[in-house]
Order: sequence, then C-alpha cells, then structure tokens
Amino acid sequence: MKSLRELIIGPPIASQQQGEERLTRLRALAALSPDALSSIAYANQEIFLGLAAAGAAGLAYSGPIAVAVVGLLVILSLSYAQTIVAYPSGGGSYTVARENLGANVGLVAAAALMIDYVLNVAVSVTAGVAAAASAFPALWEYRTPLALGLLLIVTLANLRGLRESGTMMTIPVYFFVGMYVLMIGVGLVRAALDGPGTFAVSAPPAVAPLTLLLVLHTFSAGCTALTGIESISNGVPIFKAPEAKHANQTMLAMTIIMAVLFVGTTGLTQYFAVVAGPEETILSALARRVWGSGALYLLAQFSTLLVLMVAANTSFVGFPRVASIVARDRYLPRQLTLLGDRLVFSNGIGLLAVLAGLLIVGFQGDTHALIPLFAVGAFLAFTLSQAGMVRHWWRQRGPRWQLKAALNGLGALATGVTLVIIGANKFREGAWIVVALVPLLVFAFWRVHAHYQAVRGELTLAGLPPSLRPYPPPRLVMPISSLHRGTLEALRYAESVSNNVTAVHIEIEAGSGAALRAEWAEWGLDQTVKLEVVPSPYRSVIQPFLEFLDRTDAEHNDGRAATVLLPEFVPARWWQAALHNQTAWVLKLALLYRRRAFYRTRPFIDLPYYLHEEPPDHPRRPAARRRP
Amino acid sequence: MKSLRELIIGPPIASQQQGEERLTRLRALAALSPDALSSIAYANQEIFLGLAAAGAAGLAYSGPIAVAVVGLLVILSLSYAQTIVAYPSGGGSYTVARENLGANVGLVAAAALMIDYVLNVAVSVTAGVAAAASAFPALWEYRTPLALGLLLIVTLANLRGLRESGTMMTIPVYFFVGMYVLMIGVGLVRAALDGPGTFAVSAPPAVAPLTLLLVLHTFSAGCTALTGIESISNGVPIFKAPEAKHANQTMLAMTIIMAVLFVGTTGLTQYFAVVAGPEETILSALARRVWGSGALYLLAQFSTLLVLMVAANTSFVGFPRVASIVARDRYLPRQLTLLGDRLVFSNGIGLLAVLAGLLIVGFQGDTHALIPLFAVGAFLAFTLSQAGMVRHWWRQRGPRWQLKAALNGLGALATGVTLVIIGANKFREGAWIVVALVPLLVFAFWRVHAHYQAVRGELTLAGLPPSLRPYPPPRLVMPISSLHRGTLEALRYAESVSNNVTAVHIEIEAGSGAALRAEWAEWGLDQTVKLEVVPSPYRSVIQPFLEFLDRTDAEHNDGRAATVLLPEFVPARWWQAALHNQTAWVLKLALLYRRRAFYRTRPFIDLPYYLHEEPPDHPRRPAARRRP
Repeated sequence: MKSLRELIIGPPIASQQQGEERLTRLRALAALSPDALSSIAYANQEIFLGLAAAGAAGLAYSGPIAVAVVGLLVILSLSYAQTIVAYPSGGGSYTVARENLGANVGLVAAAALMIDYVLNVAVSVTAGVAAAASAFPALWEYRTPLALGLLLIVTLANLRGLRESGTMMTIPVYFFVGMYVLMIGVGLVRAALDGPGTFAVSAPPAVAPLTLLLVLHTFSAGCTALTGIESISNGVPIFKAPEAKHANQTMLAMTIIMAVLFVGTTGLTQYFAVVAGPEETILSALARRVWGSGALYLLAQFSTLLVLMVAANTSFVGFPRVASIVARDRYLPRQLTLLGDRLVFSNGIGLLAVLAGLLIVGFQGDTHALIPLFAVGAFLAFTLSQAGMVRHWWRQRGPRWQLKAALNGLGALATGVTLVIIGANKFREGAWIVVALVPLLVFAFWRVHAHYQAVRGELTLAGLPPSLRPYPPPRLVMPISSLHRGTLEALRYAESVSNNVTAVHIEIEAGSGAALRAEWAEWGLDQTVKLEVVPSPYRSVIQPFLEFLDRTDAEHNDGRAATVLLPEFVPARWWQAALHNQTAWVLKLALLYRRRAFYRTRPFIDLPYYLHEEPPDHPRRPAARRRP
Repeated sequence: MKSLRELIIGPPIASQQQGEERLTRLRALAALSPDALSSIAYANQEIFLGLAAAGAAGLAYSGPIAVAVVGLLVILSLSYAQTIVAYPSGGGSYTVARENLGANVGLVAAAALMIDYVLNVAVSVTAGVAAAASAFPALWEYRTPLALGLLLIVTLANLRGLRESGTMMTIPVYFFVGMYVLMIGVGLVRAALDGPGTFAVSAPPAVAPLTLLLVLHTFSAGCTALTGIESISNGVPIFKAPEAKHANQTMLAMTIIMAVLFVGTTGLTQYFAVVAGPEETILSALARRVWGSGALYLLAQFSTLLVLMVAANTSFVGFPRVASIVARDRYLPRQLTLLGDRLVFSNGIGLLAVLAGLLIVGFQGDTHALIPLFAVGAFLAFTLSQAGMVRHWWRQRGPRWQLKAALNGLGALATGVTLVIIGANKFREGAWIVVALVPLLVFAFWRVHAHYQAVRGELTLAGLPPSLRPYPPPRLVMPISSLHRGTLEALRYAESVSNNVTAVHIEIEAGSGAALRAEWAEWGLDQTVKLEVVPSPYRSVIQPFLEFLDRTDAEHNDGRAATVLLPEFVPARWWQAALHNQTAWVLKLALLYRRRAFYRTRPFIDLPYYLHEEPPDHPRRPAARRRP
C-alpha cells in the first residue's frame, strides 16, 4: 500500500524544506496569470453563443461587447494596482474585506471566492476538453470522463506538490500567448489581404430578436473573461523585491496581453464572419479560418487545452490556501490547515477535486451550462474587496487618499453594477444556485465557529485549581463470555490496575452462567474477582451489559462511571475476523457514543489478545520473555 | 431507529417462548410440501422449452418425459420413507451423509444442499414473477425489480419470524392444489368433449432435430420438479406422534398430489397441443386454454405466484437451519448459530437473501437461465443421502436389512444416474458453476474449521499453572497534543491506574514542545509525569508515536508492551466529529491491527471526554457529583 502511494504521490517531504522561492516578473506572470488569460477561451465562446441567437445582426455586437469587457478590465487593473501597494503581504478578497468591512463581509467574500475556485476548475477542465474535441469531434461523446480524467491528473500533480512557480507551468502559458499572438498577427495580415468576410449560408438563423436584454445577457457571459485577474494582488509576496513594484508591472503586462488576445480574437472573428457549429468552439473555428486544418491549427488547440489545465491548477493553489486561512480563523474544519506529508494542504486539494468532480458530473461536462454559475462569485468578491479598499483609504487618510478611494470606488461601482447585471440576467439559468449557496456557506462558517468556541470554552484550563490530586483507583467492569487464555490474561491485567474488579457474564443460553461460576471457583478467581451473571431473555449482549453498568454506576453514586475492560482476541488474518462475533466493536461504539448522558467520561480498556496461528511477519520474541 | 426496526421486524421475543408446536398431517403437508409441489411450475416450462426446439414432433414427448420423472419421484419417495423411519429426529442429507459416509462426504452434501436452497429461492421467485407476467405482460420488463421486491417481502417476513407451520402458509398451498386439481378436472371434461388439439399455425417450428440427446436434455430440466421432496424427511420432528408414521402418510399424500398435478398438466398440454409464446409460461397457456382469460384464469396464475412464494419461503427455513448445524460443527462462521431477537437465525436469513438477490440480478430474473444450475445440487445431495442410507442399513443389519439397503440403493442409483445426466447435459449452460462451487465450498469449510481448531488450541486453559499472580502495574504511555481539561482529566486517571506514566508530545510545528513543557511545569505535572517531545519532520502523528512505543518497549525489555492511554474528546453532535482530527481512531486501529508482531497483547485505555455544548437528551446529573 505504502509503496503504491509513494509511487503516485511521492515520498514525504520534511518541514525544513519549506523554502520561500522568489520569482522574477516573467515567471510570476506565468504563475499568476493563466486563470485570467485562459478565460478568453470560454468568454469568447459565450459571447458567440449569446449573440448568435440574434443571427448575423447579433454577431455584429461581439466587437463592442469585447471592448466593454476590456474597459472593465482596465478599471479592475487600476483598482487592484492599489490593493497591491496597500497589502504587500497578499491582499486576498477575504483578507481585505474582513479587515475593512468586518468578519461577516469577509466570510461572504470567502464563500464567494471558494465557490468561484471550484467553478474555475470545472469550467477550465471542461473548456479544455471542448478545445480538444473541436479538433477531434469523436471526443465529444466522452467529454465527462475526459474532463474527470484531466481533473484527476491535475489533482494528483497537486497532491505531489506541484509548484505553481515551476518551469513546467511557465511553458504552457508562454506557448499559449505565443500561439495566439501569432494567430492574431497572421489573422491581421489575412484580413488585410482577404478583406472582410460575409456570413455564408451556414450562418446561424436568428431565433431571438436583438434586444438590449440579449446584449446585456451576452455581456454578463463575456465577463467570465475577467475571472482570475485578482491572482496577482493575492500573490505579491512571491515577487522578488521590490515586490509591489514588480507586481504592478506584471499586472500591467497581464492586462495588456489580455486586452490584445481578447479584442484580437473577438475582432477577427467578427471581421471574418466566422461561425462555429454545435461541435466546435468559436476559437477553434477562428484558428481554422487562419491556419486551415494543419499542424498550426492543432498546436493552437493544444496550447488552449494546456493553458486551461494550468488555469485549473491555479485553483488548486488558491482554494486550499483560502480554506486554510478561513480554517485558521476557525470557520472551517481545522483539518484544512494541516500540511500533508508533501507540504501541501492535501485535505483542501482533495475537497476541491471532489467538489469540482461533482460539478462536472452534475453538468455533464458542459462548459456552457456551468457559465451562469461562474462570475457571480468572482464579481461578488471583486466588489467586496474594492469596497473594502475604499474603506481602507478612508480610514488611513494618507496622501491623496481621496483619489485612491475614488479609484477603488469606481472599481467597486463597476464590478457591483456588473454583478447585478450578471445576477439578474443569469439568475434563472443557474446563478441562483450561487446566490443561495453564499448565505448557506456563511451560516455554516458560523456554526463551525460557534462549535470551536464552545469546545475551547469547555476545555479551557482557566478556573481549575492549581494542583490536582489523582483519582482513586477506578472500578473495573469486565464482560466475559467464557474463560480462556485471553480472558484470564485480561483478569490478571485488571487486577494490576485496580483492586475493584467485577466480571459480568451475560447469560444468553440458560445454564452457561452456572458453568462459568464453577470454572471460576476452580481457578481460584472467586477469591479476588466478583462474578455477576446477568440473564438476557432476548439473547442480546449489549443491552443487558449497558443496563448493568447504569445500575451499578447509580448504586455506587460516586460521580464516576466504571471503567469497562474489554478483552477481545484478534485473529492473525483479516478474513478471520468474519469468523468471530464483533461484539467488542459494537460494545466499544455503544460505550463511546451512547453512554454520554451522565458522566464526563466513560473510560474503557481494550485488551486485545493476538492469536498467532500463522507465523507473524516479524521474528517473535522468545516465548519465555512474554510472561515475567 | 429502534422503533422503525420494531415496526418492520417486530419487538424481541424471549427465549422461553421457543415452543415446540406439533403439526397435524394436513398442516405438515402444507408446511413441508410447497417446495416440491411448486416445482411443477418451472419443470413443466422447461420440458416445453426443451422439446419445442424440435417442433411438434418434439412436444409429443412431453407425456413420456413426465412419466419418467414421476417414476423417479416414486423411487425417491420410497427411499425417503426409509430415511424417515431411520432418522425420526430429522434426517437431512448432511446428517445422514456425515454419520454414515464421514465428515467430508457430509460437507459435500451440505455444500450441495446450501447451493440448492439459494437456487430454490431465486428460481421460485423468478418463476412467480413469470406466472404473474403471463397474465399481465407489461410486467415482463420489470421482472428483475419485481423478483427482488418479492424476495424482500419473503426475507422481511422471515426476519419477523414467520412460522412455516402458520395458517398463513397453509392457505396458499391448498388454494394452489385446489385450483390445479380443478383445472385438470375441467380440462379432462373439455378433453372428452373437444377431442385432441392439433398444433395451429402458431406451433413452434423445429429448429433442432429430435435426438436422444435432446430428450435427455429435456429430462434433465424436467427433473427440477423433484427438488424439495426431501423436506418431509428433514422435518419428521414437527409431526404429532407417532411421528414417523404420520410423516410417511404425508409423504405418500404429497407423492400422489405431485404425480397428479405433474402428469395431469403435462398430459393436458400435450393433448390440447397447447403452445406458449415467448412472454407466457406453458402453464399459463394451459390455464387459458381451460378457463379462457377470465377470473378463474387469473386465480390460477395468482395461486401459482403464491405457492412459489411459499416455496421460496421453505428455503428461508431450511438454509439457516443447515447453516447453523454446519456452523455448530465449526465449519461455518459461528454467527450463523445465533438466534436473533425474533428467535430466528437472522444471520442465515440475511445471507440467503443476499446470495439469492445476487443470483436474481446476475441472471436478470430469468428462470430459464437459472435452471441449469438448479437440480445438480439437489441430486448430489439425494445421491449422497441415499448412499448413506445403504451404509446405515449395512452397519445396523436389523431385520430385512438387505431389502431396505436395496431400496435405498435403487434410490441412490436412480438419483446418481440422473445426476450424471443432468451434469453432463447442462454442464456448459451453467451446471459447471455448481460443479466448481461445491469443492470450493468444502475447501472453505475446512479452512474455517482449521481456524477454529487453532483458536481453540491457543486459548485453551490446559497447561496453565493452577493459580496466576496478577501482573505488576503497567507502564502507561499517553500521546498529548496540548494541555486542556480533557487531557488533564486523562492524566489524573492515568495516575490512579499506574505510577509509571509517560506523556508523549509529537511535535509537528516547531516550538510546540517547548510551549507544552512550560505549561507542564506551570501545572506541576513535571513532578509526577514525564513528558517526552518527539519531533516529526514529516508532520505525521501516528508513525513517530508507534516508533516511540517500539523504542521504549525494547528499552524496558520486560516482555510486556506499554499500555497506551488515549484521551479523546467526543463532540455532542455527530457532524461535529468532522471538525476534529480523527487521530484517536486512526491510532486505535493502528494499535489494534499493526502492533501484533512482538507481544501477545497491546492494551490501550480509551478515555473519552464528552463535550456537552448542547443540552444532552437525558437529564444530566448535578455537576457537583461529577468530580469527587
């Protein structure tokens, strides 16, 4: 078992190896931007699908919508540039919102962010499959298993402790940027040579009128392009010094690249009047228009698939990190704060993989169906984070604070309005799920927090007298079905621990008690250990034993529950366990979880007796040593 | 939970109520014969399907085959009549074969019998569904879920403790016999009035030549009619005195009824030249021929369904009984010998239901597919049982022993030859499964037996000195992550049990050990309990702790493993368990199953600390009492 685990996940890594590697701007861009950059893959597609409903007339709006999205991008970049300066140690939405707007708003931001991380994985992976299936249509049929397969690869890579800063991550990002810049460049040359395209007979017929609502609806879907642009402001500490400056330069570079890719691809699509069938993405259709169906087309699709997988990967860094911060504040199970033996938050990675997998299965691997849920969370987090920044400047009142506050205010306003547009337009298509989930999550956060606070209160040492005397020896009660080496050993052990031992025999078959009592006397046990025989008319062992405990505990009335001593024998092979009653297990569970009403504790001593039968794996000690 | 269980299964029944109710011959017939009587439902069908392959010419052989089967029935009845006399306390095949031919042959008989009981359930239930679906063809599509539904009803009824002797069981049997006798009577009148039928255009075309092989093949399938006729000889003790005489009279009655029903239905089918389509049983077609499609036809089908359910029920009495006898001889898990709280062998009933359910699902509820597996087991058990009887008479050498031995010898020979015919003809269609399964089961019986013998040897008290001194107080080792009320209570408890207590802190985060050590001194614990800090570079808790145990055990070298004291706190609500590391559980399992190599035992003390947080379900004792 262990070697298989090590093969897949790798050997453990010691805590000391947790180094802080600082990144150059070029590598940081590759590490932090794929989430944002790759968004154009599905945002383009959504704009096309949204406008195609209104036919050729509708598709004429793709350019303007792209420009509007880029405008929003610029506002957000300026806003986040300020966050970078204000929070050089990393200003995630949760941190900024909590510090400036209070714990509740912070939790709302955390909930929104975590939902979005999960959706980013599902959307990126399914969009990656769509890119691949556009080149090889036979794959459409298997998109759910393919998406799950990609998810598994990303998950395992992260459990191994894939570094977001690794070179392996850098290549796909620059490969993607290079391929698309090249494609836009060649496309522009083609455009100059060929002139504008006109919609062929295959142009989609209009099925809906071209209304403002349709345009807004499409704009909402196009805003998914902006998901992930907050990554750089979260990751300031990974830059080489001066961190803030480098981060801002990187932010600028990313904004420019995004604008070029997004406007370039959308513009070319509109200029060439490219349309895509039901089994192709619009970016694939554009790539085909520019490159034909040859190797360069395939490379373009491959780069899209790769960058989307890297984008999914960023969620695997971000989600466990946010979850661990929220868990450290005691709003999520504290297991999420634990570093696994590969120095990653294994529990958070596992949780994310399961949730994303459920989404992929639930939505049958369909990116388009997932999109309405996406972006609501991101824009909610954007809005809260920018609003928090306004408060931040207002409280600091440093030089030119009014300007800074105004800039973040503009960001908050723009994202807030967009949030309302997205929420309203996509509500019935799925956004309602996120709208409902955020308050539920916040409620869950508080329940968890209340529990931890209560536990802390119950376990505090405050108020205890400074020195505590040990208890008097415990009363021991030992269930016994028959006398054999195992139970005899248990009795010898019991006597070494307490001078107050009672053995209890639950009599299922009439007469077994009397037989045991005779054996008892024969072995001289009646001198030291009291044997009680309890009849069990319904042939149950557990219930009469528990009742015996209740009765005798009440009789002793010393405020302490008796300690139960459970002898059990453990067979040499696992399958042999099926050949014995597992009464010991049932009794253990019953004691641990059902006997809680009256006492603070119900100690029990488990006395396993190992049967050897087959030779043990390790050399056994000489038998003589076993008994002193 | 308990009330739901009581609603379905009923309240517990006390051991004293286990009365021995003796039955009149009429009620015993109803109790013991349905397995045999109902067999005609599927045996008829198999004869029809087998011969129809050879077309009309083939179907002409159904009468002769029926007569041959009835001949075998008569031989078997005479044979079993002798078993009844020789084993008035119930002569099951396992008992007779083991007593006369040795343990191994007995186990072969037991394996064959148990397989057959399982098959009887699957075949009866699916044949019942086929009878119902012949009347309502819409049901064919759902035969697997319907069969599982019927299985569930029979299982629950048996878990409640349905008496095989109850009036509820008597009605369906006599209803069935009455309906079929009536049908045969009316059919004979019709036959006299209408004259013989001729095969209509709908007659099945011959797809196979009419060969001896085909006839033998069909005869093999028809022999399934004889499954279950051993029931009366197994159940002699339930008759009123004189048991053997009454049992033999009942056996005679059953033989006559079976012969009448079987020859009657087969003969009429042939005379009327009845054929059945793919979605109807041949008995249903016959009933339709006699009654039309009115109420009497529906009653006939209903009576068939009912008697088949009662037949399935007989397996639920027989299988757990055989399993408990084999388990009492220590060849099967001894849990099968336990009477549940409704005074039935609940484990055996559950096992049978699961196995039959798997068969139904695996064979998609198709009786015809199951039949080749059936009868092999039954005829193997018949043969061994009859051969055992020959040996019995030979050893006893009572009056006229040669005649008796010859009679049973004839039985053994006839069933043995039939067994070979069935095995050979049906081998490739499924009989091989049973042929392979019997030796596997016998092997499993022996493995189980060997284990129980070894355990008995290891646990025996023989050879121990007559009086045993208690051990010296145990060394206690307690893992501790932080100091709080729970761990402090645990320390107080530990000191009450032993004066040799060591607390071990596994240091996952650097510095936590030093902090704990300071607190330790503050509470004065350093006076009495040694605190050891063990670094854990890979952030694992379990492994370093186990290594610490191994090291210190080896250092002490007194032949005894230290006792581990595990403090754990138990939250008030089950879901809260997810908010805490379940390290205690993992450690418990690791200790119980992985620390077995060196010592006979590794005791551990579980010290739960119950958090109250929410008010408990029961009134709590005043807090003052809790601490003495």
